[in-house]
Amino acid sequence: MNSFGRMFRVHIFGESHGPAVGILVDGCPAGLPLAAEDFEADLERRRAGRRGTTPRREPDVPEIASGVLDGRTTGAPLLIRFANESTDPSAYDRFRTTPRPGHADLTARTKFGGWNDGRGSGHFSGRLTVGLVAAGVVARKVLAPIRLAARLIEAGGRADVEAAVDRALAEKQTIGGLVACEATGVPAGLGEPFFDSVESLLAHILFAIPAVKGVEFGAGFALAGMTGAAANDPIAGADGRTETNNAGGIHGGITNGNPLVFRVAVKPTPSLPTAQRTVDLETGRPAEVTAAGRHDTCIALRVPVVVEAAAAIVLADLLLLEQERPRVAPRDGAR
Amino acid sequence: MNSFGRMFRVHIFGESHGPAVGILVDGCPAGLPLAAEDFEADLERRRAGRRGTTPRREPDVPEIASGVLDGRTTGAPLLIRFANESTDPSAYDRFRTTPRPGHADLTARTKFGGWNDGRGSGHFSGRLTVGLVAAGVVARKVLAPIRLAARLIEAGGRADVEAAVDRALAEKQTIGGLVACEATGVPAGLGEPFFDSVESLLAHILFAIPAVKGVEFGAGFALAGMTGAAANDPIAGADGRTETNNAGGIHGGITNGNPLVFRVAVKPTPSLPTAQRTVDLETGRPAEVTAAGRHDTCIALRVPVVVEAAAAIVLADLLLLEQERPRVAPRDGAR
Amino acid sequence: MNSFGRMFRVHIFGESHGPAVGILVDGCPAGLPLAAEDFEADLERRRAGRRGTTPRREPDVPEIASGVLDGRTTGAPLLIRFANESTDPSAYDRFRTTPRPGHADLTARTKFGGWNDGRGSGHFSGRLTVGLVAAGVVARKVLAPIRLAARLIEAGGRADVEAAVDRALAEKQTIGGLVACEATGVPAGLGEPFFDSVESLLAHILFAIPAVKGVEFGAGFALAGMTGAAANDPIAGADGRTETNNAGGIHGGITNGNPLVFRVAVKPTPSLPTAQRTVDLETGRPAEVTAAGRHDTCIALRVPVVVEAAAAIVLADLLLLEQERPRVAPRDGAR
Amino acid sequence: MNSFGRMFRVHIFGESHGPAVGILVDGCPAGLPLAAEDFEADLERRRAGRRGTTPRREPDVPEIASGVLDGRTTGAPLLIRFANESTDPSAYDRFRTTPRPGHADLTARTKFGGWNDGRGSGHFSGRLTVGLVAAGVVARKVLAPIRLAARLIEAGGRADVEAAVDRALAEKQTIGGLVACEATGVPAGLGEPFFDSVESLLAHILFAIPAVKGVEFGAGFALAGMTGAAANDPIAGADGRTETNNAGGIHGGITNGNPLVFRVAVKPTPSLPTAQRTVDLETGRPAEVTAAGRHDTCIALRVPVVVEAAAAIVLADLLLLEQERPRVAPRDGAR
Repeated sequence: MNSFGRMFRVHIFGESHGPAVGILVDGCPAGLPLAAEDFEADLERRRAGRRGTTPRREPDVPEIASGVLDGRTTGAPLLIRFANESTDPSAYDRFRTTPRPGHADLTARTKFGGWNDGRGSGHFSGRLTVGLVAAGVVARKVLAPIRLAARLIEAGGRADVEAAVDRALAEKQTIGGLVACEATGVPAGLGEPFFDSVESLLAHILFAIPAVKGVEFGAGFALAGMTGAAANDPIAGADGRTETNNAGGIHGGITNGNPLVFRVAVKPTPSLPTAQRTVDLETGRPAEVTAAGRHDTCIALRVPVVVEAAAAIVLADLLLLEQERPRVAPRDGAR
Repeated sequence: MNSFGRMFRVHIFGESHGPAVGILVDGCPAGLPLAAEDFEADLERRRAGRRGTTPRREPDVPEIASGVLDGRTTGAPLLIRFANESTDPSAYDRFRTTPRPGHADLTARTKFGGWNDGRGSGHFSGRLTVGLVAAGVVARKVLAPIRLAARLIEAGGRADVEAAVDRALAEKQTIGGLVACEATGVPAGLGEPFFDSVESLLAHILFAIPAVKGVEFGAGFALAGMTGAAANDPIAGADGRTETNNAGGIHGGITNGNPLVFRVAVKPTPSLPTAQRTVDLETGRPAEVTAAGRHDTCIALRVPVVVEAAAAIVLADLLLLEQERPRVAPRDGAR
Repeated sequence: MNSFGRMFRVHIFGESHGPAVGILVDGCPAGLPLAAEDFEADLERRRAGRRGTTPRREPDVPEIASGVLDGRTTGAPLLIRFANESTDPSAYDRFRTTPRPGHADLTARTKFGGWNDGRGSGHFSGRLTVGLVAAGVVARKVLAPIRLAARLIEAGGRADVEAAVDRALAEKQTIGGLVACEATGVPAGLGEPFFDSVESLLAHILFAIPAVKGVEFGAGFALAGMTGAAANDPIAGADGRTETNNAGGIHGGITNGNPLVFRVAVKPTPSLPTAQRTVDLETGRPAEVTAAGRHDTCIALRVPVVVEAAAAIVLADLLLLEQERPRVAPRDGAR
Repeated sequence: MNSFGRMFRVHIFGESHGPAVGILVDGCPAGLPLAAEDFEADLERRRAGRRGTTPRREPDVPEIASGVLDGRTTGAPLLIRFANESTDPSAYDRFRTTPRPGHADLTARTKFGGWNDGRGSGHFSGRLTVGLVAAGVVARKVLAPIRLAARLIEAGGRADVEAAVDRALAEKQTIGGLVACEATGVPAGLGEPFFDSVESLLAHILFAIPAVKGVEFGAGFALAGMTGAAANDPIAGADGRTETNNAGGIHGGITNGNPLVFRVAVKPTPSLPTAQRTVDLETGRPAEVTAAGRHDTCIALRVPVVVEAAAAIVLADLLLLEQERPRVAPRDGAR
């Protein structure tokens, strides 16, 4: 469903062209300073407006409707809501019967018996990531001084991202991208055995970001072609520090004290200004559809801050969880 | 924690060199035929013994301790337990103080204050996947006639897997591999919006399999370098059928009726017959460690059936979940 | 935390004197008609204004911010928000240091390190039950034609509730009450074995209603004093119908097709117009406190509709859950 | 389903006349001393053999199959299994078609399509509480030095429990009972707002104990007939200590530092040595059934240790949860 997390728990809601989108954050510790302006920098990084992003520009002013008093979190759930203002639902009417390839138009219709809000992908829209970013802002307060940094390292297969965007714009194409993220200052020992490995939890939320189709940790897919001698990270200190970081900071699903490193593959925006083959659901016959609406040439440009937010949510959750574990004195001097 | 799933729910337990490993399966529908011999084929696929796998060979006889009566599931939890027989814990003693690179020796020690069972990686061992395979056998009964097939398509970077294994054996190396999985007959409409996308759920459990470091769906990481025109799958029928399947059968996190396709990167076995650099935790000084114990040259050889089981668990869960959704008559003839 | 339910899942938020209260409902089936006016009747039953209730009167206009399109649920989360309008937080300032007996003033302060919103009990206020009532309205749409009816059968120990309220008003006292609830048309077979018995789930949410201190099913506490011959309900039909209903419609935690019957004990409003003994937290010395704010003489007057809503949430959850269970043909003609 | 808890999580399994019953405990902190003999005292309190209990006497030897090494918990799941030895399933055959009043025979059949294990109530049997007691033993180690004590304060409506049992035996009747439980040394601040109030969590698990039909906290149902002045507990110290304890140690769902006090109503054993009215499910006609099998005259005699175990599971869970909450410096000197 629309919830994620165990201690630091987020519930997402809203539709692209409905009244609002946002997130409900439960389990946030009390006493953290929190104000609307804390959200501005991250929201700006996600906001459109740059070359290669959609002309839809939302003010994205967070309304904190609960959980904060006198500028501090109270321990009660935080409702953070963003009114949708720049909506234009009429543009989407015909996609009800001629679903757009690469979008959720048809799957959402199948799942919800046609009752889904299909306007601009409705609840399936990338618009909802504004809620993730907002939750990420809160999560970062929980996990300071851990630092998270994601960036777009490739677009359309090229490391020169700007050039790739320019070319896509010139060719009226859309392109995908590759986002790399690193978290430093992560303590060793986060993560849970087996099903709640750090990789499992991060991948779970990362694949919830619309357009993400691949996730790898450390050397990732390259490890499949390596030998053990090359892949293993020699241990360089009792604190878990390793000489290399092919494991991306995780062994046995548990953080090892090295930087957490992962990469995320973002597919190209499926909305194109050119005609694409689909079917007319009323007649069952082949049809063509051209994306109306306002879309990003390279949605991956806006993804890094969302990836950071997603990772922050997981790390906040794990950090709160870990602090719960009362220990008897460690065995054999283990820390 | 050690649980996964919402309707079809599995709880894993055991240690590599403890008395037993196994799984508790909750939420299995009543009335399914289930006998010990149903497990044999899949257990055999996971079992060691082939060239390139460990000499440890466990009989892996499933004991069904609850949840079955007269050869049928009763609707109560199924406890499936495998006694460990071929144990040799003494081989692992010295890894307590000289942790093996690439293993959970040090992270588990950190997390559990040194109280963890470190013998053969204990609860973190690949040995636990026998429980996953067992749950997968049950899950497949729930999701028939959906068919799942995973296979090793590359080892050590080569498509000729046997040759790769031979070379690794000759060179006293271990190698990783790439596992591809396809599910056919998957109905459209499975999966949940946002956090419980099909990709999220599959990746969650796949990354819980020891040694998995990357997961991609459909064209996966290649999508990051593609254009939208090339990446989009043209819709070929009102049933959701597409001309290509770059999306791997999933749009908006929901199955679209095409085959579900994903790939999993498996790192090389970290246990090597050659010395590796580590630290002595008692002195804090550099040390060397050589893997004792019995290990696989290419653990990826044994992973395909585990991947199928993991996917089966997710699909059984989603299938049971979907059947729950009572619908008013669909809108506009949507199915 | 602030969530409840498995398939039909509610997340509550808000504070008594903050900007808003409300509820986020996830898992509601798509296609149900839903409009603001559907909430009116139940909100009116909960609303104050009658003799014996608080002079605070909120308009309680539900804002449906997501999950509805063209008057139908879409399958996406429903955010139902109620702006607080009749707030007067200043009345509560001194309870920070002289906590009111019978309230959460001191426990909330302890739990949240003093960062909690203490104004009118903040997140612990009975004000939040407006969100429960709203979710109940949605839940009832899921579970039609099951009917739920709760009523106040005793106040201050008397069956003549009006007389009891009159006397309490005359004596400047507050009084508790006993609420009885019955659900008819409940199909047999709802509920889950062991931990998620129908009694467990109902009691869980009922005890979340502020002021509830006792819950009993069927003959309840009286059963402790009965013999088996008197307590057992003779089975009168293959449909599960019984001659008596001492079990309250539940055997083994599963509904048996008879009416679901339970009672809830509601304590008196702890806010009194007379002085009560407490401590001054700044000095540690004994002090007295008199409830300011606006309060109900008999909060139990407003509880029946909240009890119905709570029960509706559980039943909707169980009903959605049950429809998930695909069955092989039943054994021996069992239905 | 068959799971309960958030940090300290238990999964129950088994059937009365199947191979085994037991419990899987996840989330137990590492390093706690744990041995089979630790279970003996509590298992003995639950064991039959006293006057008024069933002649079925099981050895109840706990097999700890995972999660313990060298006498200490490892942080991995604990599988605690009890082989069933004194089984006699043939006695239950005819209850398939002539279901026993007061039992789950018919509801389980309805729920599971007749595939349930009906022998001695199968998975619905009080036999499963041996697993709860085992988990309680582990939980108590987590929550020391909190002390829990439950006792039977009434049987068949009489405070002289022995006399009540004697009379029931003489009259070939079964009787119910009232169990009171008190926990002392409980820190203030446990419990979660709203849905996870201490009352909610305790009631949830208490109502999972077979035969429990009522739960009340502090003065409980009597509060419904009291005035606020009489019901409120005057606060006697800044530590939350109150002069009376009508609230049972809980305000706003959060512990207030006073003893936790609650009572549980246990219905009479529904198995009677005399004929009871039922239906023949094959013919649909009225029938009679007399309980075969071996049963307790007063099952409530064996319930106190189960109630303690259930409460210990909740308190361990809340205690682990609470220790998770990192706090900024408290506000205004709040503790």
